[in-house]
Amino acid sequence: MTASAQAPNTQLPASSANLDTSHKVSIALDQRGYDILIGPGLLDEPATWLGLPKAQVAVIVTNETVAPLYLERLSHQLRAHYTRVEAVVLPDGEAYKDWASLNKIFDHLLAQACDRKTVLFALGGGVIGDMTGFAASVYMRGVPFVQVPTTLLAQVDSSVGGKTAINHPLGKNMIGAFYQPERVVADLDGLDSLPPRELSAGLAEVIKYGPIADAEFLAWIEDHLDALLARDKAAMAYAVKRCCEIKAWVVGQDEREQGLRAILNFGHTFGHAIETGLGYGEWLHGEAVGCGMVMASDLSVRLGLMPAEFLPRMHRLIERAGLPVLGPALGIERYLELMRVDKKAESGEIRFVLIEGLGRATMRAAPDPLVAEVIQSHCR
Amino acid sequence: MTASAQAPNTQLPASSANLDTSHKVSIALDQRGYDILIGPGLLDEPATWLGLPKAQVAVIVTNETVAPLYLERLSHQLRAHYTRVEAVVLPDGEAYKDWASLNKIFDHLLAQACDRKTVLFALGGGVIGDMTGFAASVYMRGVPFVQVPTTLLAQVDSSVGGKTAINHPLGKNMIGAFYQPERVVADLDGLDSLPPRELSAGLAEVIKYGPIADAEFLAWIEDHLDALLARDKAAMAYAVKRCCEIKAWVVGQDEREQGLRAILNFGHTFGHAIETGLGYGEWLHGEAVGCGMVMASDLSVRLGLMPAEFLPRMHRLIERAGLPVLGPALGIERYLELMRVDKKAESGEIRFVLIEGLGRATMRAAPDPLVAEVIQSHCR
Repeated sequence: MTASAQAPNTQLPASSANLDTSHKVSIALDQRGYDILIGPGLLDEPATWLGLPKAQVAVIVTNETVAPLYLERLSHQLRAHYTRVEAVVLPDGEAYKDWASLNKIFDHLLAQACDRKTVLFALGGGVIGDMTGFAASVYMRGVPFVQVPTTLLAQVDSSVGGKTAINHPLGKNMIGAFYQPERVVADLDGLDSLPPRELSAGLAEVIKYGPIADAEFLAWIEDHLDALLARDKAAMAYAVKRCCEIKAWVVGQDEREQGLRAILNFGHTFGHAIETGLGYGEWLHGEAVGCGMVMASDLSVRLGLMPAEFLPRMHRLIERAGLPVLGPALGIERYLELMRVDKKAESGEIRFVLIEGLGRATMRAAPDPLVAEVIQSHCR
Repeated sequence: MTASAQAPNTQLPASSANLDTSHKVSIALDQRGYDILIGPGLLDEPATWLGLPKAQVAVIVTNETVAPLYLERLSHQLRAHYTRVEAVVLPDGEAYKDWASLNKIFDHLLAQACDRKTVLFALGGGVIGDMTGFAASVYMRGVPFVQVPTTLLAQVDSSVGGKTAINHPLGKNMIGAFYQPERVVADLDGLDSLPPRELSAGLAEVIKYGPIADAEFLAWIEDHLDALLARDKAAMAYAVKRCCEIKAWVVGQDEREQGLRAILNFGHTFGHAIETGLGYGEWLHGEAVGCGMVMASDLSVRLGLMPAEFLPRMHRLIERAGLPVLGPALGIERYLELMRVDKKAESGEIRFVLIEGLGRATMRAAPDPLVAEVIQSHCR
């Protein structure tokens, strides 16, 4: 199967980079569309929190790193709308994206007799967003939730589009649901306090959107990478907005990943193997995706889909973003084995998201020996 | 809120009791309708298994009691359609309807590198059906599944309508999803080997459909209870068909339990309290529902919704079916506490499904002292 980003009858929204720092991007889905609010200062702005589902109780799910920075501020805003505002504070990190953490959320909700109108708020990065969304999708068979992403990675990718999941020891994001939030609130001020490693991890997902969907955006990122690394507000606002626009366009056409949506996983097949192979939490997700994009770019070139110069171009950009470009030495067999349980695999055949023209992705299988060469070339 | 079974613009399908032993009932849902096949000998009939989703692998989930009776027979049929037919055999009982069992299914699926086309088959009673359906809904964010209910309770109720769940120590069915099967195969021969206690538990759910939706069916059950207890094929076929018709009619109007669908929980608010209070597995679910219907009938009378003779009529029928009519002595406060975390509760107010006319249900709150009197009157 080939899922090309150039779907018929649809047009990627036009790009407009200007000095605005606040944007709204709408996700269009039957009956369940929602808005992504992007800008500085949103968290403390009462208007941000108007019009959400009514309930007695709001439960904020967050982690030990994020709680000291934002929990009281968000609670303060929500107290204007909910009789009780409670918090579940989980340990920080991908290693805790598991059933035990999920169950802590359920324990709290049930111990506090939270009913099925309760609204959950995911305050944190991708791990908190994925887990809270999954908890919301299955608690009493579904309660509403709101994404409040505090990392760049979550703002440009994981908080948008309704993919939720936890990890299983045998595979990343293997247990989950498609479940859409009521709203996404991406406060750009949150990025100021992000550790450099997290910023780079987020930039991996930003870079991703260029080769799969928008050649001009790829060039823009190359031109503005220094501004992004310096956390320039206008550059960051445009990058987050453009990523969300592209993701909204893809998800609007293929919410449940029957085809097109898989292109958002560029670099992720190799990346998930790295994450699972090392044990969750060793590398950040974005770091694994960065390295995975180098490998997937190389595979695109080796299959003759892209000219040779595409690999060094991607390699340079990913390295400049502060991301690893060499994978861990797991052994080639272990890489292949881990990739065979990837969700995109079918009948044991690994399927890769590859680039077949700048701004155009495709999904296809590749011969094992070629994949082995790619791994060999980009591992320590 | 009042959710009446007499919804506007819809008509419960007419009833026709005859000597046929095979029926087909269709569930109409946008894009995801499916058929319930009812009859003797369906399991061993190749035509039963035609037209299901294509895949390399089928995984049958069953339990230690059911496996010796049906696993090889179902596997034999499925080998005509799938390259690999595998089995996950779980311990039997409501006590095992938990995360640990669910995770055994995931462990198997991932260890065998089952991809997201894999079809799951739930071979067993309500516990197996609920767990397998939930596993299917979240494995790789959703794989197809087929219900093969082997108990009366599962055939008339739990396998139909797409409610899936596991229990949490603090509440029954608290973690789950709405997720529809591809087909339901109710082989009536399976009922021949059912222990008498399981047969009675199934009859509780059969009886339920009378007072909530069909006064004539209630009278039919009273007239044919001896034939049902004797497992007469034609009587059983009609009972299963009529229950499925009523359930299909309800679910077709309110798949996600925004209102009407809650009437299917007649007797369940008291019943879930009994199950959770005693510890899962002490009473069968149907036994708890039987006793719960006596309590809910009494509450309907005490609230003036039904004439006094309704209580002894329900009491007699439930007792004749071999079901308990006295609840365990958990203490009134414990009953109330357990019912406040019922999924239908809102803002700590318990909401009951009550009868307000034969064949017509409603949902409403009731004063705690009145509920206490009801519990007092029907407990050991």
